[in-house]
Amino acid sequence: MAARRPTLLVTLGDPAGIGPEIAARALASPGPRRAARLIVVGEPEVMERAARRARPGLKLRVIDPDREDLRTLPAGLAVIASSKHGWSAVTPGVATAASGRIAARAIETATRLILDSRADGMVTAPISKTALSAAGYPYPGHTEFLGALAGVPDTRMLFVGGPFRILLASVHLAIRRVPDAITAESLHRTLDFAALALRNFRWGARKAVAVLGLNPHAGEGGLFGDEEARVIAPAIERARARGIHAEGPYPADTFFAQHAKRRDLGIVVAMYHDQGLIAAKSGGIGGAANVTLGLPFVRSSVDHGTAFNRAWKGGARAPDPAGLVTAIRVGADLAIRAPRPMEWTWR
Amino acid sequence: MAARRPTLLVTLGDPAGIGPEIAARALASPGPRRAARLIVVGEPEVMERAARRARPGLKLRVIDPDREDLRTLPAGLAVIASSKHGWSAVTPGVATAASGRIAARAIETATRLILDSRADGMVTAPISKTALSAAGYPYPGHTEFLGALAGVPDTRMLFVGGPFRILLASVHLAIRRVPDAITAESLHRTLDFAALALRNFRWGARKAVAVLGLNPHAGEGGLFGDEEARVIAPAIERARARGIHAEGPYPADTFFAQHAKRRDLGIVVAMYHDQGLIAAKSGGIGGAANVTLGLPFVRSSVDHGTAFNRAWKGGARAPDPAGLVTAIRVGADLAIRAPRPMEWTWR
Repeated sequence: MAARRPTLLVTLGDPAGIGPEIAARALASPGPRRAARLIVVGEPEVMERAARRARPGLKLRVIDPDREDLRTLPAGLAVIASSKHGWSAVTPGVATAASGRIAARAIETATRLILDSRADGMVTAPISKTALSAAGYPYPGHTEFLGALAGVPDTRMLFVGGPFRILLASVHLAIRRVPDAITAESLHRTLDFAALALRNFRWGARKAVAVLGLNPHAGEGGLFGDEEARVIAPAIERARARGIHAEGPYPADTFFAQHAKRRDLGIVVAMYHDQGLIAAKSGGIGGAANVTLGLPFVRSSVDHGTAFNRAWKGGARAPDPAGLVTAIRVGADLAIRAPRPMEWTWR
Repeated sequence: MAARRPTLLVTLGDPAGIGPEIAARALASPGPRRAARLIVVGEPEVMERAARRARPGLKLRVIDPDREDLRTLPAGLAVIASSKHGWSAVTPGVATAASGRIAARAIETATRLILDSRADGMVTAPISKTALSAAGYPYPGHTEFLGALAGVPDTRMLFVGGPFRILLASVHLAIRRVPDAITAESLHRTLDFAALALRNFRWGARKAVAVLGLNPHAGEGGLFGDEEARVIAPAIERARARGIHAEGPYPADTFFAQHAKRRDLGIVVAMYHDQGLIAAKSGGIGGAANVTLGLPFVRSSVDHGTAFNRAWKGGARAPDPAGLVTAIRVGADLAIRAPRPMEWTWR
């Protein structure tokens, strides 16, 4: 793995949320700029406004990606204009069809540039599913949207940067729908994704993939649900037969405390959103980045939402860019570690 | 609240698990003995064996509760014999009908003594639901068993001792059954329990009761489930109309990090077992005690299981009594704080 400085595209997320402000603050600080060459993709007037708030005098240059090499840009704050609706299209703090459209255009533009090998990865600020939906994009989140743009039918969400790497077997689903969504086939793929992430990101291909149970106490021997015996344990066995160091299913509530010191632990597979994310965020919000597995490129994201109620207030209440700084750090690290294109089929 | 030293009965839990060993180690250490007068209830030969392992020379006195005043016993390790099967009935590390019967008898004996006002509360070591079930006790856990013994139809589980007090709206249920178990009526009662706990334990009757959502992102405005709009938000409104400072529903994954510093937060209501317990145990196992609400007396418990694989191994591998020490500390504190009998109906 060559020690180089990758080029990452930073999408601004929903312009009515805190995305532009945290992007401006993260890009104005030296740590992220040392880790990667960072180029903003979004609505230029929105970024200009955020940049002025982050640091008066911060100059912003709108660049044309068809005419400039993104890997050799001079230092400074560069923006690729993915839309030109202007600031007037934005209602600060309110999810609208317009804000959803602006957010979506940035993601589309950044994806196209990365698929064309013009940059090494994408770091995304938070979007609003409500706004996206109002704009006619039927995606519950970035992960599904990016999967569709890249023509990848199957993706997974991995949280990186905290004490555990946590992979979600299901994501944006009502709890009611989770048990039937954890099928033998989807779990088979999830465990492959875990093993492939260990390999693609060179985290140690022989490290353990620890699988949590779905039910309390991992079903307590069948007393509180049979999914562990019927679906999860067989999936672990099948993965082991394929050479994956899968283990479990473990009771989720005690797992994290009991396995905090294991050095041979590679990835923890959580069955559903809150089971994984309560643990991932137990060290505080902003400590972990959300990485999409299955895409042909590296994509990392903040682990929080648009925080509309705190957006564009200015002054001492400026939103904390810690989550985006983590996402940039993780994205830069993975872009250096991962081969292009990554292999997402287990052989 | 009188500053006195309450008398607590410590049940040994499943004798084949780590209960007897952690009880012996906790009772041999000065902190727990300062907090309360502690009397073991269980199988004397089992406790004797555990006491010898905890500290050679630790003397144990079997007492007859019909002939001695439990509140004025002389110092020293006292045991009430709830059964006389002997050590030979126990297969170390294995849940059997015999181990379930021994565990159940201790709980029955301790409950009877406390209901007779012979002691102030109960601290319980872990039991095995499998063993209990094999012995013919159809209870998924202590909470339900104690509710039946005390003739109380409705109880709740509250975790105390960590950075948050966490109340569970549902407990030992398969995830598949959780959404339909969270009814308007049960949530109504859960919020009453939260408010009554704040009052009974003098934690501040005006403090907030924060309610988590069931679904990821608390349903994201209905995109991932409608229980928040259909059941949870109306229950919060109804509680507010009764004078309870209920708020939410909050997305569970971000709640704990975002509300860590609130001083006006009384209790957090989690919708299901792992949602609450992953957070409760994020500071490590043994940091929180499980307190039963709804009983006429104080009962606290360890937050971990029987750990059969680590039981009765002896030597350097002796199990850590931290969870039981926490349960004794919390139980002693609550026994001093709470009136006898406690009021569990909101008026």
